[in-house]
Amino acid sequence: STVEHHTVLHTCEYLEKFGITTVQVATDALGVVDPAEVAGAVTPDTALVTIMLANNEVGAVQPLREIVDAVRERGRRLGREIPVHTDAVQAPNWLPVDVQTLGVDSLSLSAHKFGGSTGAGVLYLKRGVPFLAQQSGGGQERQRRAGTEHVAGIVGAGVAIQIATEQRELAVAKIELLRDRLIAGVRARFPDANLNSNAPVRLPNIVNFSFPGMEGERFVTALDELGVAVSSGSACMSTSWEPSHVLLAMGLPVELATAAIRFSLGPDTTAAQVDRMLLVLPLAAERAGPVAAHLAG
Amino acid sequence: STVEHHTVLHTCEYLEKFGITTVQVATDALGVVDPAEVAGAVTPDTALVTIMLANNEVGAVQPLREIVDAVRERGRRLGREIPVHTDAVQAPNWLPVDVQTLGVDSLSLSAHKFGGSTGAGVLYLKRGVPFLAQQSGGGQERQRRAGTEHVAGIVGAGVAIQIATEQRELAVAKIELLRDRLIAGVRARFPDANLNSNAPVRLPNIVNFSFPGMEGERFVTALDELGVAVSSGSACMSTSWEPSHVLLAMGLPVELATAAIRFSLGPDTTAAQVDRMLLVLPLAAERAGPVAAHLAG
Repeated sequence: STVEHHTVLHTCEYLEKFGITTVQVATDALGVVDPAEVAGAVTPDTALVTIMLANNEVGAVQPLREIVDAVRERGRRLGREIPVHTDAVQAPNWLPVDVQTLGVDSLSLSAHKFGGSTGAGVLYLKRGVPFLAQQSGGGQERQRRAGTEHVAGIVGAGVAIQIATEQRELAVAKIELLRDRLIAGVRARFPDANLNSNAPVRLPNIVNFSFPGMEGERFVTALDELGVAVSSGSACMSTSWEPSHVLLAMGLPVELATAAIRFSLGPDTTAAQVDRMLLVLPLAAERAGPVAAHLAG
Repeated sequence: STVEHHTVLHTCEYLEKFGITTVQVATDALGVVDPAEVAGAVTPDTALVTIMLANNEVGAVQPLREIVDAVRERGRRLGREIPVHTDAVQAPNWLPVDVQTLGVDSLSLSAHKFGGSTGAGVLYLKRGVPFLAQQSGGGQERQRRAGTEHVAGIVGAGVAIQIATEQRELAVAKIELLRDRLIAGVRARFPDANLNSNAPVRLPNIVNFSFPGMEGERFVTALDELGVAVSSGSACMSTSWEPSHVLLAMGLPVELATAAIRFSLGPDTTAAQVDRMLLVLPLAAERAGPVAAHLAG
């Protein structure tokens, strides 16, 4: 099992319908993938390796360059070039995203994750990488994506990534402070709360805690009623009530996976908002269920 | 050969790569398809019939309801239900688009063709019609199209279709007058110009003329230099210099197909603009090539 986003997992499932075999590489308890394991899974038949740059639920950042190097080395032994793709959707606000440094063959981004509008994205393709257009019809974008271009979204994405890149270092410094304030505040109120993934390299804007004995979904609803928006898993799956596949892949028992809450900070989040959330958190926990035992003080 | 848009034709070619057979139904000299011919092409293996509602290059409107009825009748004899799709992209500003009246199983629209923004579209699917999502990943739009929704584009499309529908009858009445003025003006200046498609039911906003002896592309360029934007084919193919497949499918000889110019009117086009175009048209023709013989007066 893997911590990849459903956009990749469901695509793999879809490909399997057409007789294509996909292999998932496990992660450690922090949600990090071992480059040697990835390379070990590569066979002479491997068409593509795809690894997310940073995880959307726990924030773990993968050692992508090491993975690319390990896959390249394995490819050399097999006498084949194995292209490596990365879903870097979570990264632009918080990490340098440089295709040269990462060494990948292709990379995908969503504009609305770095200040652009929804309905636009970025696909980087290294020259020479084989590519089959997903959408055929018109000859737009040099035959790579048919359909009249979403011009406003594309132009906006270009401006947004420039602004996000310029502001990144300052934004990270600010958010790390808020993130630490949030973690300390949660721990002070819920001493047995479990920080899911404390990977040495991780996104500063995502904090994922499990609250033993709580039901994550009820906690989310209670917080929502108190004006705080958090998530118990991926926002894309917000209508499903399954425990997070990411937390399960990291080896969390189902009880802790269903007791998880993801706190996300944005470039515009303020200390006052974090404090307000910390203030209502015990109240929400009380409303949500069997939590008295977990409240400190 | 067929007058369908490349978005359909290229998709058919794409499907053929996967061993799916596609059959094209011919059109008459006006660009209109015969319902009996469509029904005659249906076999027990037919998975889908797709016919554009209105043509983007000559404006011919297909007898879609008659086609749907003929296909349904044929399906009954074969003991099968054959779904009928229509590409109605050109229609909303100018024709009533009612899926009940048309009787189709599915229908597609582009928002930017009726006043919305690019990057948004509409797919109508009758309940129960089999459907395979083209884009998998997230569960958005009830599993029908993965990806965070282009909310602004979607909302804008809804508003735009409402406005376009409210204004349609007035817009058509106005544009028909301008269209007739344009046709009369062209004929007065170029007596041997050939109006490509004078189908009894057609879009009021598209006028397609062939100018014998002219090279359409040079004519387009000369008009462009004089501040008039016209097209020698589909705008989506504006970087290719092939004669229009639509005109060829209608039986025009290559000389006339390459001598064609498409004039498009919009809801905001004015009589003054039409007159200005008519004023510069002979000048552009002179600049473009061997045309002196075609100039009247």
